[in-house]
Amino acid sequence: MLSLTETIEIAAVVTGAVYGVLLARRHGMDFVGVFSVSFMTAFGGGTLRDVLLDRHPLFWIRFEHYPVLVFIVCAITSLIRRTPGWLHKSLNLPDALGLGLFSVAGTQAALDCGTSGFVAIIFGVITGTFGGVIGDIVCNEIPSLFRPHTPLYATCAFTGGLVYVTAIGLQVPAEVASAVSISMIVLLRLIALKWNICLPGM
Amino acid sequence: MLSLTETIEIAAVVTGAVYGVLLARRHGMDFVGVFSVSFMTAFGGGTLRDVLLDRHPLFWIRFEHYPVLVFIVCAITSLIRRTPGWLHKSLNLPDALGLGLFSVAGTQAALDCGTSGFVAIIFGVITGTFGGVIGDIVCNEIPSLFRPHTPLYATCAFTGGLVYVTAIGLQVPAEVASAVSISMIVLLRLIALKWNICLPGM
Amino acid sequence: MLSLTETIEIAAVVTGAVYGVLLARRHGMDFVGVFSVSFMTAFGGGTLRDVLLDRHPLFWIRFEHYPVLVFIVCAITSLIRRTPGWLHKSLNLPDALGLGLFSVAGTQAALDCGTSGFVAIIFGVITGTFGGVIGDIVCNEIPSLFRPHTPLYATCAFTGGLVYVTAIGLQVPAEVASAVSISMIVLLRLIALKWNICLPGM
Repeated sequence: MLSLTETIEIAAVVTGAVYGVLLARRHGMDFVGVFSVSFMTAFGGGTLRDVLLDRHPLFWIRFEHYPVLVFIVCAITSLIRRTPGWLHKSLNLPDALGLGLFSVAGTQAALDCGTSGFVAIIFGVITGTFGGVIGDIVCNEIPSLFRPHTPLYATCAFTGGLVYVTAIGLQVPAEVASAVSISMIVLLRLIALKWNICLPGM
Repeated sequence: MLSLTETIEIAAVVTGAVYGVLLARRHGMDFVGVFSVSFMTAFGGGTLRDVLLDRHPLFWIRFEHYPVLVFIVCAITSLIRRTPGWLHKSLNLPDALGLGLFSVAGTQAALDCGTSGFVAIIFGVITGTFGGVIGDIVCNEIPSLFRPHTPLYATCAFTGGLVYVTAIGLQVPAEVASAVSISMIVLLRLIALKWNICLPGM
Repeated sequence: MLSLTETIEIAAVVTGAVYGVLLARRHGMDFVGVFSVSFMTAFGGGTLRDVLLDRHPLFWIRFEHYPVLVFIVCAITSLIRRTPGWLHKSLNLPDALGLGLFSVAGTQAALDCGTSGFVAIIFGVITGTFGGVIGDIVCNEIPSLFRPHTPLYATCAFTGGLVYVTAIGLQVPAEVASAVSISMIVLLRLIALKWNICLPGM
């Protein structure tokens, strides 16, 4: 049986992959592009974290079923010619869960490597959000994460990371700190989506 | 005396560098841009592989004559103002040989690092093709590797990697498996070029 | 008390961060974009060097006050709505000092890792100049470093690196070699800016 964490993780990887497929399709790519971009949106953030922190083997090398999963997502979606209208909206929840899970996991991993709290929060944000940044760069777009008029995303990860690091510093048990900060990130993200809360341009 | 492998390798590095020079020139770059881009097209794929697999020192640090070779290629081509019309066509064979050699070497390197077969094939494709992807991104273009209407390239590397991994799994000696899969990649690529075989857009 | 080197280093990090802020603002980014891009322009070159040379922990993980410094620069500049006209010009000197310091430090670090002299010079150039390249790529521009009509920048770093490697090869003490090559890079850069000396397009 899969644990709750594993179930969220799989849902989040599938969601990341589907976002990549949609992004690649908007740019008229072929299957090579679709698979490459969805690989990057699904694994890019965690890969960047692991390379910068020198954690090897990378998680998608260690958990070899994840790349296969992304390949299957790409193969299935390539059979569907038209993107159904409800798809984007239905991805909001698994994406928010993934943002929460991966950001806190990234913060935790950085702390384990001995970084300062502030750097650990940055690594949380990178883990949770930079897959999309890499995908956008490869598709020749300014990353939507960096633009105003997209609902809070990195900000949710940053806030959750701050809560996690503070809680750990206050000797709160890691499981409790994780649960609280993941819930907070998910909640913040869903609120930002619901009321379209964005940062201003600068 | 150079072995066959070394000769192909040198020809492939030169070819990768020349592609970079042509790409950088199309975007009106100066010598700094020409050298940087041709460095990336020549070494980018193998560098990405080594960084992701944590193999150090990188091959162009270990084989220090390769960066010098790329510099010389850039210096010589900078003396030639007009790109001769036959150049692109004459690069097809050494490029196909390099695609075969580097893809299989990348698959082999990943297997040596203990990755799964599927991940090893992906590393083969990265090694053989991502130099051009990085060059295109730096030149602010959507990677031509990801676009329909360019003859099969990553697909050839993927197929050859699949053959290699299967053969190794069947206890075929590594030399035989290498020779067969490299030949297959080269052949597939030349056929794709000859009859302009492409993947469809998605 | 801060040493001269530390003072230059801090001034150069602040300058790199300010360049990132200006770049991100020109592209209408929000605070997430401004901080991310200024992080990349400030630390991108040294990070790329350390990842390629497998030097860990990265310098901005080890010296944890630097990321905080960049965050403060972003927070302060975000309060200033209009970029003052004199800002760009006043950055020329600290930027030139940073180019000198970081390029020579990068060359030195590569030599310490056992690379050849030519590769060490390349690492110097990467350290001194690739922060801006990464920032430009993320902002969907062809790197200004690679374009003609921008005054010599990588060329200064390359020349200084060449002087440094030659001096070390001739048994000149490292402190003397450093001082001479840093001064030469700063001088060359200021001369190139003053008389608008550029490389031609190719």
